[in-house]
Amino acid sequence: MSRDLPNSKDAELLRRARQVVPNGVWGHMATRSIGPGYPQFFSRSEGCRVWDADGTEYIDFMCAWGPNVLGYHHPEVDAAALDQLRRADIGNGPTEVMVELAELLVDTIDHADWALFQKNGTDATTICVTIARAAAGRRKILVARGSYHGAVPWCSPSLVGVTTEDRAHLIQFDYNDIASLEAAVAEAGDDLAGILLTAFRHDVQRDQEMPDRAFLAAARAACDRAGAALILDDVRAGFRLDVRGSWVSYGVKPDLAAYSKSIANGWPLACIAGSERLREAAGKIFTTGSFWYGAAAMAAAVATIRILKQSDALAKTAAMGQRFREGLDQAAGRHGYRLRQTGPAQMPMVLFDGDKDLAVGNAFCAAALRHGIYLHPRHNMFFCAAHEAADIDRALEAADRAFADIAAAGFRPQ
Amino acid sequence: MSRDLPNSKDAELLRRARQVVPNGVWGHMATRSIGPGYPQFFSRSEGCRVWDADGTEYIDFMCAWGPNVLGYHHPEVDAAALDQLRRADIGNGPTEVMVELAELLVDTIDHADWALFQKNGTDATTICVTIARAAAGRRKILVARGSYHGAVPWCSPSLVGVTTEDRAHLIQFDYNDIASLEAAVAEAGDDLAGILLTAFRHDVQRDQEMPDRAFLAAARAACDRAGAALILDDVRAGFRLDVRGSWVSYGVKPDLAAYSKSIANGWPLACIAGSERLREAAGKIFTTGSFWYGAAAMAAAVATIRILKQSDALAKTAAMGQRFREGLDQAAGRHGYRLRQTGPAQMPMVLFDGDKDLAVGNAFCAAALRHGIYLHPRHNMFFCAAHEAADIDRALEAADRAFADIAAAGFRPQ
Repeated sequence: MSRDLPNSKDAELLRRARQVVPNGVWGHMATRSIGPGYPQFFSRSEGCRVWDADGTEYIDFMCAWGPNVLGYHHPEVDAAALDQLRRADIGNGPTEVMVELAELLVDTIDHADWALFQKNGTDATTICVTIARAAAGRRKILVARGSYHGAVPWCSPSLVGVTTEDRAHLIQFDYNDIASLEAAVAEAGDDLAGILLTAFRHDVQRDQEMPDRAFLAAARAACDRAGAALILDDVRAGFRLDVRGSWVSYGVKPDLAAYSKSIANGWPLACIAGSERLREAAGKIFTTGSFWYGAAAMAAAVATIRILKQSDALAKTAAMGQRFREGLDQAAGRHGYRLRQTGPAQMPMVLFDGDKDLAVGNAFCAAALRHGIYLHPRHNMFFCAAHEAADIDRALEAADRAFADIAAAGFRPQ
Repeated sequence: MSRDLPNSKDAELLRRARQVVPNGVWGHMATRSIGPGYPQFFSRSEGCRVWDADGTEYIDFMCAWGPNVLGYHHPEVDAAALDQLRRADIGNGPTEVMVELAELLVDTIDHADWALFQKNGTDATTICVTIARAAAGRRKILVARGSYHGAVPWCSPSLVGVTTEDRAHLIQFDYNDIASLEAAVAEAGDDLAGILLTAFRHDVQRDQEMPDRAFLAAARAACDRAGAALILDDVRAGFRLDVRGSWVSYGVKPDLAAYSKSIANGWPLACIAGSERLREAAGKIFTTGSFWYGAAAMAAAVATIRILKQSDALAKTAAMGQRFREGLDQAAGRHGYRLRQTGPAQMPMVLFDGDKDLAVGNAFCAAALRHGIYLHPRHNMFFCAAHEAADIDRALEAADRAFADIAAAGFRPQ
């Protein structure tokens, strides 16, 4: 279908959705919170491509906002999941694949001596906090200002419907700022239960920052001094940077880490991996869910993690991310724009320098959509192992045309 | 495989699991919290039957603790889910099936003007509470003592790792006790945001109670007086008693209801259905999850609900439940036992009268397992539409032998 035609099916679906769903669509995938020009509904996904409800094809750089790490519908992953599904998905208890998956995680993740499974990333972060409190017999959890850890009252980015008490025992600090972390530790005093950190700073609508080695060491030391838990929220970055855990190259081991998103290449699963010291507390809290032993998603995770370990999939995403980053910078320069590209190349944040109200970024992403690539104007993007060099080069051609479009339309940072 | 052989594979899996998962298995499906003699791991499920890891077959009366309402691996449901899965499960937004499902729910559920989707029952109850607070601009939520609404700090049945503040704005009352409800309403004063009630009283290890009509009317009136939300936690009973919602026969409409478990016959999904009055507040809170737009589970839900509406599936589960209830009473009587069978026949609680420490119930369920039926000694059980009269009759023969076993072993209520 030509991209010049209106998105008639998308508009009709949104009209119908607004009758029966508040605002039609909610959460991080609601296009009204992304930017103008985005299709809202999709009909197909395959490899590194998505098709919207009107059949328009895009090279996708959001990867379902993280879950797609090997390519949509990866044949080995889906075959493993469907084979398990045919035998048993849910029943009155777990299946053998839960044991295989937990063993594989303990073998794979640097700090892990045990694992526990859930469905949502928020389940995993919430349980980490609960385990940390149970272990220490204390209450204060330190979180970085602006970090996203989920969408329930204790951590949601919104305060609507949230009470003061839901966050009574959170203390904030600034990511990568040792002095502010130490001040928060001092404020917690003898009530410090844990410090919760994302793998790197990947807050929305700002430059990403890798963690400073000294900052992670300070967090580790503060937890050791207090007998508190260092919690790595690896929901977004886990199984994307390093299959052993996102802090391995920093030499810092968390006590607890939360995973979800790409752990099963899109099959719904979340997981906590913990160290021996936290095992007893993890066994004392009560946590459960109706579908948490679902075996198909666990089989998908076993297949995904084995592929990540045995192939060059993650190195490839980094290389493709770097190819895109360099090409995008060159294309921007050709049209007189300067970009701020931050964070890991395979999870890039792309912002236009000086684009305070995002007008340029929004216009660029809308133009990019018209030329067949799906980008995001203010959230980090994601690469998958199905992105080939030819896809990147085609995407860069589309980006070049998008820069030309916005230049012609007069979009310039103020 | 003979049932007289030891469960060697189950024991070996549990031994391995204990190395890599705290306690080996957690939550409601951990056999150590069910009773002695239970297999922990399963290898297959089909219709109304499950097979443990050693290959032993059971007629199943737990139905995965609720999700299985039409029979494990229902061909129409799984075909719909897999057909959707092959096209698109997750992507950068919802698919058409989300709209179809929301429309179907609004058409089906008595009070529903809109729907919102999640993964866990706990997601749904938590969001109902958040919406109620957002709508009223108030904080107090009234909950019945002993009711289960999920497994996160604000509602978990355990206090390990939970802070006092997590429950600062909950006020308890006794289910079906109007005076205690009114006292809780008075205590909330002008801070009442909502009243949260399970469909009927289905607390663990006690007789179930259907709601009193006057009690539901009093709860509805209290919410109307205060401008608060009446919240139905229909996670366990929804799509089991009445596809229109569990209170339709009582003539009481909730403002918000939470569903999960059987909504998609075992595919992981949860949902909130709300009335027009709460739509605006539902659109203001921030709620999301990585896999919440997963389309395969939504396609499974569309198929499940259509079958429930167009067939006699639920009437059949009630009839089979009644056949089992009557036969079980007769079998118990033949061996000199008196049972307390309470709640809806298709979600029965079976307790031995006078069995204070559950020794008789535990022995009976262990004996029943040896004779090929999977029951629960202190939690309500579940029937599915794949239970045929011949299955019930075979299960009753097994139950008769189990009563004979425990009588011979001298198990009698004190």
